[in-house]
Amino acid sequence: MTTLDQISQPSDLRGLTDAELDALAEEIRERLIVAVATHGGHLGPNLGVVELTMAIHRVFDSPRDRVIFDTGHQAYVHKMLTGRAAGFEHLRTEGGLSGYPSQAESPHDVVENSHASTSLSYADGLAKANTVQGRPDHVVAVIGDGALTGGMAWEALNNIAAGNDNRLVVIVNDNGRSYRPTVGGLANHLAKLRTNPRYEPTLRAVRDRLSNTNAVGNAAYEALHAIKKGLKDALYPQGMFEDLGLKYVGPIDGHDRPGVEKALEQARTFGGPVIVHVITTKGQGYDIAVANEEDQMHQAKAFDRLTGESLAVEPTSWTSVFRDEVVRIGDSRDDVVAITAAMLSPTGLDAFADKFPDRTYDVGIAEQHAVTSAAGLAMGGLHPVVAIYATFLNRAFDQVLLDVALHKCGVTFVLDRAGVTGDDGPSHNGMWDMSILQVVPTLQLAAPRDGSRLRELLREAVSVDDAPTVVRFPKGAVAADIDAVGTVGRCDVLLREGAEDVLIVAAGPMTRQALDAAALLVSRGVGVTVVDPRWIKPLDPALVDLAARHRLLVTVEDSGRVGGMGSVLAQMLADADVRTPVRVHGVTQEFFDHAKRDVLLERMGLTADAIAADALARL
Amino acid sequence: MTTLDQISQPSDLRGLTDAELDALAEEIRERLIVAVATHGGHLGPNLGVVELTMAIHRVFDSPRDRVIFDTGHQAYVHKMLTGRAAGFEHLRTEGGLSGYPSQAESPHDVVENSHASTSLSYADGLAKANTVQGRPDHVVAVIGDGALTGGMAWEALNNIAAGNDNRLVVIVNDNGRSYRPTVGGLANHLAKLRTNPRYEPTLRAVRDRLSNTNAVGNAAYEALHAIKKGLKDALYPQGMFEDLGLKYVGPIDGHDRPGVEKALEQARTFGGPVIVHVITTKGQGYDIAVANEEDQMHQAKAFDRLTGESLAVEPTSWTSVFRDEVVRIGDSRDDVVAITAAMLSPTGLDAFADKFPDRTYDVGIAEQHAVTSAAGLAMGGLHPVVAIYATFLNRAFDQVLLDVALHKCGVTFVLDRAGVTGDDGPSHNGMWDMSILQVVPTLQLAAPRDGSRLRELLREAVSVDDAPTVVRFPKGAVAADIDAVGTVGRCDVLLREGAEDVLIVAAGPMTRQALDAAALLVSRGVGVTVVDPRWIKPLDPALVDLAARHRLLVTVEDSGRVGGMGSVLAQMLADADVRTPVRVHGVTQEFFDHAKRDVLLERMGLTADAIAADALARL
Repeated sequence: MTTLDQISQPSDLRGLTDAELDALAEEIRERLIVAVATHGGHLGPNLGVVELTMAIHRVFDSPRDRVIFDTGHQAYVHKMLTGRAAGFEHLRTEGGLSGYPSQAESPHDVVENSHASTSLSYADGLAKANTVQGRPDHVVAVIGDGALTGGMAWEALNNIAAGNDNRLVVIVNDNGRSYRPTVGGLANHLAKLRTNPRYEPTLRAVRDRLSNTNAVGNAAYEALHAIKKGLKDALYPQGMFEDLGLKYVGPIDGHDRPGVEKALEQARTFGGPVIVHVITTKGQGYDIAVANEEDQMHQAKAFDRLTGESLAVEPTSWTSVFRDEVVRIGDSRDDVVAITAAMLSPTGLDAFADKFPDRTYDVGIAEQHAVTSAAGLAMGGLHPVVAIYATFLNRAFDQVLLDVALHKCGVTFVLDRAGVTGDDGPSHNGMWDMSILQVVPTLQLAAPRDGSRLRELLREAVSVDDAPTVVRFPKGAVAADIDAVGTVGRCDVLLREGAEDVLIVAAGPMTRQALDAAALLVSRGVGVTVVDPRWIKPLDPALVDLAARHRLLVTVEDSGRVGGMGSVLAQMLADADVRTPVRVHGVTQEFFDHAKRDVLLERMGLTADAIAADALARL
Repeated sequence: MTTLDQISQPSDLRGLTDAELDALAEEIRERLIVAVATHGGHLGPNLGVVELTMAIHRVFDSPRDRVIFDTGHQAYVHKMLTGRAAGFEHLRTEGGLSGYPSQAESPHDVVENSHASTSLSYADGLAKANTVQGRPDHVVAVIGDGALTGGMAWEALNNIAAGNDNRLVVIVNDNGRSYRPTVGGLANHLAKLRTNPRYEPTLRAVRDRLSNTNAVGNAAYEALHAIKKGLKDALYPQGMFEDLGLKYVGPIDGHDRPGVEKALEQARTFGGPVIVHVITTKGQGYDIAVANEEDQMHQAKAFDRLTGESLAVEPTSWTSVFRDEVVRIGDSRDDVVAITAAMLSPTGLDAFADKFPDRTYDVGIAEQHAVTSAAGLAMGGLHPVVAIYATFLNRAFDQVLLDVALHKCGVTFVLDRAGVTGDDGPSHNGMWDMSILQVVPTLQLAAPRDGSRLRELLREAVSVDDAPTVVRFPKGAVAADIDAVGTVGRCDVLLREGAEDVLIVAAGPMTRQALDAAALLVSRGVGVTVVDPRWIKPLDPALVDLAARHRLLVTVEDSGRVGGMGSVLAQMLADADVRTPVRVHGVTQEFFDHAKRDVLLERMGLTADAIAADALARL
């Protein structure tokens, strides 16, 4: 049995010697690399927090003290140290360990969310609850420098600074990056703290002391790290955190476990909110990750651990079609600019940025600013393309509604990872956009069914200059082209077979399931028409007349079924007094545990078989 | 003709003498007081920016230079100086001047939005657009210290600090308040800058110089206000703005017009982003406003200008019923805590705060943090009541969905100003919540039809401890109680008359219109059942059976008709193969210009007459 296998709870860490702890750190890294090499997952961030997480669990007493990991994907080490090391054999597979914290897995997991910048707000609430109820427990939030660029983190810091009695330790895990180097004024400020000329020699001095003896010279340490109460005479510039009224400890070398432990112990005794600034290296301990300039293997598919080469066969993805087309558009229109919220490569804007660096803006993990600064750019005569994962646009709903649509700004939103994504758990599914965006006046939303349509609809979208436009597509391999056999209004007719019994209206790549369902119905002698509306909002009124001629209308979409395309089309029929019955197939309105996309779709009846059977039963 | 009447554009200000400008400031204040005393509107904030707005328009060249007012309600003076002084006779009346900037009114108005903290993002976008296109124009954003507590403002500052070439002037209008004193670490920091011992004498010295001669001693001024390039040797602590890498000028006395002009002129010549910190007094020049401890007459209904007493007869409002009931709940349950986003009195939480100060949290204008810290409080064993205007909850949709609902937190949201509000223009209408919240799994939403139901549903809501609950009600006078004549499931039956011809399902106070429509139908011999579902989400399945027995289902709601109650009920019928036709009456999905609520409802057919006529036509 290895040391790691003997750790069933954090308190097991406390009896280990320094040598055992060092060995444990090595073992954890080995397991991380093996697990992610096998199943894929987040590697770089977790390699960076091995010592930090060990220190947290040696100093604090989880789950009495609550430990919150912002953005969740750097909680693998935490999972290993809270009795779940064995589970990494089935990482991110259904029934196995989730890639994010999970309350169902462990009482040590507090926050399951994968959206960034929330941890400080949760922590503020939990700390207030402790204070109100007289509990002496601590709340610990671990947040990256990238997540600090999100506005929520600022709102929380502003409040945390005002709560003098709350026992709250904010650990800034500063690796200088989210996917790519963190941008903006804050990043520059952190860099200044980090590169303070006293930082390196100071850390060396502390490290030397620690290597000599376990009984650290407390006074010297306090002086060096500026963690004396009051901090009046600190050696280091405290900068903006102190301006806000927050105590600041740091910077600390995050791979110097005893040093981090010491700092956390000091922070624990403060009795009020304190910031501990820890410098870590993404990918630490795995040279191939550290050397990866793109993102230090932030998130990897299964790979060869000796070379770091991906083992996954990479089919042409929706993202890569967008990557290519947006550059072409940029070539022909110099008023087109691009915006990303700290996800240049994942959204496929990297090629555009390489070619048009002056027309590309990475705003940090700041979706609200991404959207409203896009409105400003549009007012200034440009046409911004905001590329973002569908689930993250939820964070800027109000900005899309009031800042873009109300002001008649031509801004194009490109939503990648739309629909059910599955593996990454409930907060990554892009199953909300087609419903909530329906209420935004003037907004136009397109769902391409294949690569050719993605190129075509993207061009149509960027040609609209007085309203928000949205193009949404899923994760993964782009669907094979499906040619139209005709048109109705601005919709494509994909199949017309037999009598006008069943009209299937399907959005985006769900046209595949629709055509397969149609084939089943036709084989039973049922006449079927299949239509791809291309533009989901507004829907072409021609669909109402077409539906009126059929005996049954079936709608299929890869987004929540409440308030989505089917719901709106049904309402259009009702408004026009068309009494054709409607069957709406879409994503059921619930939170899904992580599982493969296909498994989830099957479970909710979004398959050709289920759609055909439901239609047959209604005829 | 007065001086003000001769100002048809900002350039007219430039030829005026100091004496004329002083007289103009006095005249503007007089007009502000008369207009708001007559029509109601925002008074305190506008009295505070008279000199500042004059200075902006003398130094910058609107509309070539774009001037953006955060939150919009302090743009009255700007309107007067851009040719709209006469319009104040019809302030906030349909066809008259809007209470917010309006692109339709003037090319000098850029941003119409009344939601806070957006101005810096717009400005960042506009400034980037100028840079990309090689335009030398400036962008000026005026933002209050209150709006700076919003996360968007932080996201923007972080980006603005990174854009070294962009000609962007951020004016921090620091009056220390939003409605009440601004809270949090930032407010403390601003207060420190403000109360710097050198501030007062310095300003006096500058003022003395300026009163002696118009040719100001530039060098002295620059030294005093720390506006030299580089700022290395500034006399003043620059604090967090400089930490971010932003140039900082200030603090400046905002009522010293020549001083403000000088600072703005210096800022204009920087050629990069700069912050100008201006100290103003809310209500300046109208003693009754300054002396108003509550909010310096932030927003007033028609009042007697000699006494400041409101002339409006204040009927018992929905807000006041909530104010009363939440205190009662707090009396009986010490786990109930309250959260406001800088709107303690407007939301009616003031009484709760007075009685339970340790259980009340004002988080600043920070809706995201309000919601997620509520999730933390709930995880910590408390039951938070988040009181907020309906339109502002849009800013925290993602937090409601993932931070509260996904984590099974018992948090109650109380949405005031739900439905069509009218007077304050498009961004104040609370017409989105009933649609977008429909997609949130587990969330329960109630719409009380009268005061008794508000008390009852609020108690039911706070008894739910594993999911978000919402209670939504409109602005204005609470509706008279309507007793139920029976129940169906957990719905109230309000009328059963004659045969089961028409079933009207109406939400909240729209039950009044439903009952009136029912009376009209009954008078024509049509049988009608009227039901108030009380809980709009989830809707009681008993409604489906009831609808199946009727010939026509009519739904009525004071929220967007796309994806709302009627849409969901229609979907429930379709899912159950119930073929009763459905007529959905709700707010049309568009942006409304400011107008009285009744006028808007009539225009969109949300009246008893229209509802009855539509039903008759369908039978």
